[in-house]
Amino acid sequence: MKHLFLAAVVAAVSLPAAAQFQKPEDAVKYRKSAFTVMGTHFGRIGAMVNGKVPFDAKAAAANADIVATMSKLPFAAFVDGSDKVGDTRAKPEVWAEADKFRAGATKMQEEVAKLQTAAKGGNLDEIKAAFGNAAKSCKACHDNYQKKD
Amino acid sequence: MKHLFLAAVVAAVSLPAAAQFQKPEDAVKYRKSAFTVMGTHFGRIGAMVNGKVPFDAKAAAANADIVATMSKLPFAAFVDGSDKVGDTRAKPEVWAEADKFRAGATKMQEEVAKLQTAAKGGNLDEIKAAFGNAAKSCKACHDNYQKKD
Repeated sequence: MKHLFLAAVVAAVSLPAAAQFQKPEDAVKYRKSAFTVMGTHFGRIGAMVNGKVPFDAKAAAANADIVATMSKLPFAAFVDGSDKVGDTRAKPEVWAEADKFRAGATKMQEEVAKLQTAAKGGNLDEIKAAFGNAAKSCKACHDNYQKKD
Repeated sequence: MKHLFLAAVVAAVSLPAAAQFQKPEDAVKYRKSAFTVMGTHFGRIGAMVNGKVPFDAKAAAANADIVATMSKLPFAAFVDGSDKVGDTRAKPEVWAEADKFRAGATKMQEEVAKLQTAAKGGNLDEIKAAFGNAAKSCKACHDNYQKKD
């Protein structure tokens, strides 16, 4: 599982990212879309974790699977030239501190993979713990790399 | 495979969709985002199918997996009240002909599942055929249910 996950990350990183978008604007739209889908499904787990909706183990696992898939997508779209186009809230630090940004992304992907494992297990306490760690990993990058509205 | 796929579709349909979005605008943003991610990865397979980029079986399979995941997401977000909010191009027929729209969605999901199978197989001719059928199933709904820009 862990190895498969790391292999997927390495594969994603090694793609010629810029070549995959016709225009920098397309990259912005794509990465924002991936984050929107990820955030929606992450939020649905959060609603269960926070007791706003009843816990549904099957739904939690399905949502975590989607979050895990989505977590791998946005980062290939922070291509050069996509820092000042479209409706992006990405700070210049995304590119100026690319290694640190990439490390934050990897951390989030790892925490999300753990959340996926916990959700498959179906134990709410474990899901709560993993959700909290994943949420922290999201927030860390938002604090550092995302302009506030 | 087929049964698993149908089970997933049934599960998705049986969710209380409207309750999953706080505002109709959120549903519009979510479904558009899911289509954007789906279209991006579908287009990457298309670029191989059309010879614009070299065929890479592993990349085609990875893209098809993402398309298959995304194909199941947008339709739960065509909730009541989301027909005239946000920046939607959905025609009123989405809701007026809900059964027909749903059938078109299911057809697309089936063709995408076949594309995923073909992509796993790694045979370019089979991928081409499955891609063409999937593209037709996309276009059918776009023609009927999407306002032109």
